[in-house]
Amino acid sequence: MTAETTPQPSILQLDLRQDVALLTAAIMDINSVSGNEKELADAVEAALLAIPQLTVLRDGDSIIARTELGHPERVILAGHLDTVPLPLAGGAKGTVPSRWESGVPGEGILYGRGATDMKGGVAVQLALAATMFDGGAAPKRDVTFVFYDHEEVEAVKSGLGRLVRNHGHLLHGDFAILLEPTDGTVEGGCNGTSRFEVTTVGEAAHSARAWMGSNAIHAAAPVLARLAGYEPQTIAVDGLEYRESLNAVKINGGTAGNVIPDRCVVEINYRFAPDKTPDQADAVVRELLAGFEVVRTDAAAGARPGLNHPAAASFVAAVGAEPKPKYGWTDVARFSELGIPAVNFGPGDALLAHKDNEHVHADAIRTCLRALQDWLAT
Amino acid sequence: MTAETTPQPSILQLDLRQDVALLTAAIMDINSVSGNEKELADAVEAALLAIPQLTVLRDGDSIIARTELGHPERVILAGHLDTVPLPLAGGAKGTVPSRWESGVPGEGILYGRGATDMKGGVAVQLALAATMFDGGAAPKRDVTFVFYDHEEVEAVKSGLGRLVRNHGHLLHGDFAILLEPTDGTVEGGCNGTSRFEVTTVGEAAHSARAWMGSNAIHAAAPVLARLAGYEPQTIAVDGLEYRESLNAVKINGGTAGNVIPDRCVVEINYRFAPDKTPDQADAVVRELLAGFEVVRTDAAAGARPGLNHPAAASFVAAVGAEPKPKYGWTDVARFSELGIPAVNFGPGDALLAHKDNEHVHADAIRTCLRALQDWLAT
Repeated sequence: MTAETTPQPSILQLDLRQDVALLTAAIMDINSVSGNEKELADAVEAALLAIPQLTVLRDGDSIIARTELGHPERVILAGHLDTVPLPLAGGAKGTVPSRWESGVPGEGILYGRGATDMKGGVAVQLALAATMFDGGAAPKRDVTFVFYDHEEVEAVKSGLGRLVRNHGHLLHGDFAILLEPTDGTVEGGCNGTSRFEVTTVGEAAHSARAWMGSNAIHAAAPVLARLAGYEPQTIAVDGLEYRESLNAVKINGGTAGNVIPDRCVVEINYRFAPDKTPDQADAVVRELLAGFEVVRTDAAAGARPGLNHPAAASFVAAVGAEPKPKYGWTDVARFSELGIPAVNFGPGDALLAHKDNEHVHADAIRTCLRALQDWLAT
Repeated sequence: MTAETTPQPSILQLDLRQDVALLTAAIMDINSVSGNEKELADAVEAALLAIPQLTVLRDGDSIIARTELGHPERVILAGHLDTVPLPLAGGAKGTVPSRWESGVPGEGILYGRGATDMKGGVAVQLALAATMFDGGAAPKRDVTFVFYDHEEVEAVKSGLGRLVRNHGHLLHGDFAILLEPTDGTVEGGCNGTSRFEVTTVGEAAHSARAWMGSNAIHAAAPVLARLAGYEPQTIAVDGLEYRESLNAVKINGGTAGNVIPDRCVVEINYRFAPDKTPDQADAVVRELLAGFEVVRTDAAAGARPGLNHPAAASFVAAVGAEPKPKYGWTDVARFSELGIPAVNFGPGDALLAHKDNEHVHADAIRTCLRALQDWLAT
């Protein structure tokens, strides 16, 4: 560090009142790969500070903006600012900045990193914040907007986790909506996720005299066979069907081409239904791999859908479509831990998240905004 | 590259006339892991150049030193200068520099990388070169000493292979002895070795929605199961019993903890008896792994024992012990290809080669030297 002050780059001006699909493209054009959220967070903070009815707090690259209208009910609208890394290939449809397939800004399909996960959702939050007092109107519920950093990386870095620790009193609420992509339907709860390492141990020897050693890669054969043969379950929780996944995600063994390997490590990821605690998920994996050394390296509980809560039920009714289960782990689980029922509801197809051809339809973003505007106004 | 010359480090002086076990320790203390043979090659070259009866040629980090006595028979004594990498743990008995278990230099067991494979053998070659003209004597056969680099890595890098290509006329001879560790017995021929990559391909997807993809690591389960279940054969060739080995030596699959792996590669090493050509060995592996994509990446033929050749027979008789088969591939196969019968004969237990506790008994080195001195003098 030097004593000199670094000249601050000027903060980007976001026009929150432009069409929400164009606003999405403007936000996508600001690189905010995890760890690099500052520029976008600065722009979001500045835009929110310009809305007089909001109380704004900044913590690192996370922002909380609250109405204080004295309503008996408060809803939280949350979204993360970061994206996974840019596509390596940077093909025509996967590039940053954003790209309109039609060639006409605001028309049709918008391609680029963050299109679905989740700059469309962030744009909806911002547009909602800017417009909900229009014409002297006011929302019928108090609203807390949360924008946070480091969602796409290890749980320990999560900006939302940090906000809970540092400013938990600002995060109370009756119901939370996470604007992760759900294709405009309400997705309740989420699967939990846990990671394991299974290590097989052998004894090194020259590969010309294999009988002097013991092969750790061969010893891993039953681990892979049991994983390959396992039929993941589908489990109904509070009326929604959660489909599980149990997979080897990495394997690594051996040291040299002429040495019998003395160690092989299989990394496993188990996405389990929210009927289970992480410890119960553990038991499933340990039973399947009985006889092997299984070490849990990471775990995050799932969240039950909680759609029986009145606030959730009223929101589901307002959206009008049949709710679905959420397969991927999302931060609804953090709200669930705080005792706040939470759902996912956002524009875009979650199956496109993290893909090189990530994209979203402009109308999906507009529809999502309208649904939230209508619900808050009634 | 700059135009400046790099200052040359001074070349280490090796005393070839010291006790051959102490000479072994001195050579072990010069790191010569494959690719890093220069310092040792410089020292060996300098020591050989100081022996007036030898004609010395240097090629890269390989050296050929020949007597030109006009004898009708010429024997080749060959050894590699490189070692496998140092033990990671670097435990008390596996460290570099060398270590005498007794604490007394030259007494008892010598520990360290290269103790068996094969700095004891190299020391015997050097001591023989220095002493065979002692007291006005001269060997009864012409002798070609060969020291070479890159034996412990891919065949294509072999220093001996390069010498054959560049200086084949200097490598003719009636009989070759490779000073690889054989515990002082004569080991005939060697198994062949070939390497294969078996790749399974899947389809990447987010690990929360595994059913959208296909798991390449799970697809490798039968590859490992078939390798684990395979019973390697033992095959008699020219009266010696060759035991085979077929092993996965490395496995690697997966890209990230939340992605269904789309690729898994298993590296296989097959050590096959000298009754088979590399193509016949191929067929064994392809039959075992039928249905999988098998690519051969390396192959070296074995060598039949060839002990019926008169020069080989006279040497076996001089050593006086029952000859055995050699399991590991050694460069006897290269001499075999040149039509030169070749055997392995050197100090140390081949089963300790590449092990962290590699070691050799001082007396084994001395006995080996004496046997060769006696045979050459009569």
